[in-house]
Amino acid sequence: MKTIAYQGILASFSYLVAKEYFGINNSFIGTKKFADIFKLVISNKVQYGIIPIENSLAGSIYECYDLLAKHHVWVIGQTYLKVQHCLLGLSKDTKISRIFSHYKALEQCAKFFEKHREIEAVVYSDTAGAAKYIVEQNNKKWAAIASQEAAQKYGLKIIKKNIEDNKKNYTRFLIIGKQVQMPAKSNKCSLIFTLPHVPGSLQNILGDFANNKFNLTKIESRPIYGRPFEYIFYADFEYGVNDLLKAKQTIFKLKKKTIMIKVLGFYPSKKIWKIK
Amino acid sequence: MKTIAYQGILASFSYLVAKEYFGINNSFIGTKKFADIFKLVISNKVQYGIIPIENSLAGSIYECYDLLAKHHVWVIGQTYLKVQHCLLGLSKDTKISRIFSHYKALEQCAKFFEKHREIEAVVYSDTAGAAKYIVEQNNKKWAAIASQEAAQKYGLKIIKKNIEDNKKNYTRFLIIGKQVQMPAKSNKCSLIFTLPHVPGSLQNILGDFANNKFNLTKIESRPIYGRPFEYIFYADFEYGVNDLLKAKQTIFKLKKKTIMIKVLGFYPSKKIWKIK
Repeated sequence: MKTIAYQGILASFSYLVAKEYFGINNSFIGTKKFADIFKLVISNKVQYGIIPIENSLAGSIYECYDLLAKHHVWVIGQTYLKVQHCLLGLSKDTKISRIFSHYKALEQCAKFFEKHREIEAVVYSDTAGAAKYIVEQNNKKWAAIASQEAAQKYGLKIIKKNIEDNKKNYTRFLIIGKQVQMPAKSNKCSLIFTLPHVPGSLQNILGDFANNKFNLTKIESRPIYGRPFEYIFYADFEYGVNDLLKAKQTIFKLKKKTIMIKVLGFYPSKKIWKIK
Repeated sequence: MKTIAYQGILASFSYLVAKEYFGINNSFIGTKKFADIFKLVISNKVQYGIIPIENSLAGSIYECYDLLAKHHVWVIGQTYLKVQHCLLGLSKDTKISRIFSHYKALEQCAKFFEKHREIEAVVYSDTAGAAKYIVEQNNKKWAAIASQEAAQKYGLKIIKKNIEDNKKNYTRFLIIGKQVQMPAKSNKCSLIFTLPHVPGSLQNILGDFANNKFNLTKIESRPIYGRPFEYIFYADFEYGVNDLLKAKQTIFKLKKKTIMIKVLGFYPSKKIWKIK
């Protein structure tokens, strides 16, 4: 049995992903903040943590990238979640006056609130927590936006399914651990790096990927504020399942071409590598 | 006198940027949505629009990129705003029970709400609108998160300045118009493109920038959901103020190497080109 830290409470989206990835016969610890997950992993209080890294509607989650850059953790896997928001309440027949949920969930359901201007959107620390709060308050006029699983978990009725604006709402999660692990079937690597400020420096890096026929699945420049013309790059590339050595050699070459480079991990892009 | 569309109401951050960029002796029209700005520009009801395109904490604003990809508009300039959030209310001495603001503003002040768990965060369509709402409701226990200018505009007191979590909170805005314009002093170009799915295709593109010593100031891949391994790229590059022709020639070459490419505009990276 493993212990896994996630952000939120039981039935939060992170919890659902953790359960799906590791299996139900493990122990799951919810935290208030993403930073807490890193603390638990580093202090060996949990074996693994699970963090959202990017969303199809909102892009990269810089807060998690900053934590990955700062802490000595290792990415050992990834997984995707299709985010589906449900409106949950105590009754299907009572007119709702207030809806509680996480910032992002409220924002992802903006069209619903535009249609229902009489309803007030109130921020709550997390989606499942909002569902729990509705039950505690026992107010039929109040509702929460959370997962279908949260309705089951906290005994709420599903008033409306899929109230999110955009149905193509996916979040990518990374699994982190303390120990360096390179699963034999890894085929994906995530990197953070900074480059010398000369034309062609990024092209030069990409050449090393291209020459090995590595597939760049993500590249993003993020300006470093206060340091004009300096950027942090986030990159993911995929290699053949037998090319881990080649991937490592390529990164070794990159060390000479970058100002800073941090390998976040080598891991399977699909959930083919089962956690023992 | 020009007419400029922005999202929000008077004293919203977009309005402040529009006023700063164009000067006060122009006419400004606030819209409910970003899409409305595009409609007004395309139908010639306004000469220019102003849209946020990326934020230093949250990254690219995909909603605006999608609108730029879809509509025939032209980027003619850019500008930056340092986002500074103030807590505004009717009284400095009354204990606040509820704070109204835009999703993003509430989120950017998350640490403030963590410290003050007794205060409820309520979503409002925009920051300045929330300030106006407090005045209308005339409730001393309620407050809004908005700009310092909103306090002056709506006659509110500044209870606390700079309540945002991160002081390095910058938003980049683009100025859009209907007519293709290539200001003589332009030195920056924004592009949206998709590439054939073969290793090295991005490197190949970057080579054209590097060979001309063009400075790539932004590169970002965004996965196209539902179409595995397909990506949209967002790129900005800077060229010398006398190199507009060379920039155009480079893009002409890129047309053969991309599946789709859309030039968003050639414009000055600094506010050196005054709107006539």
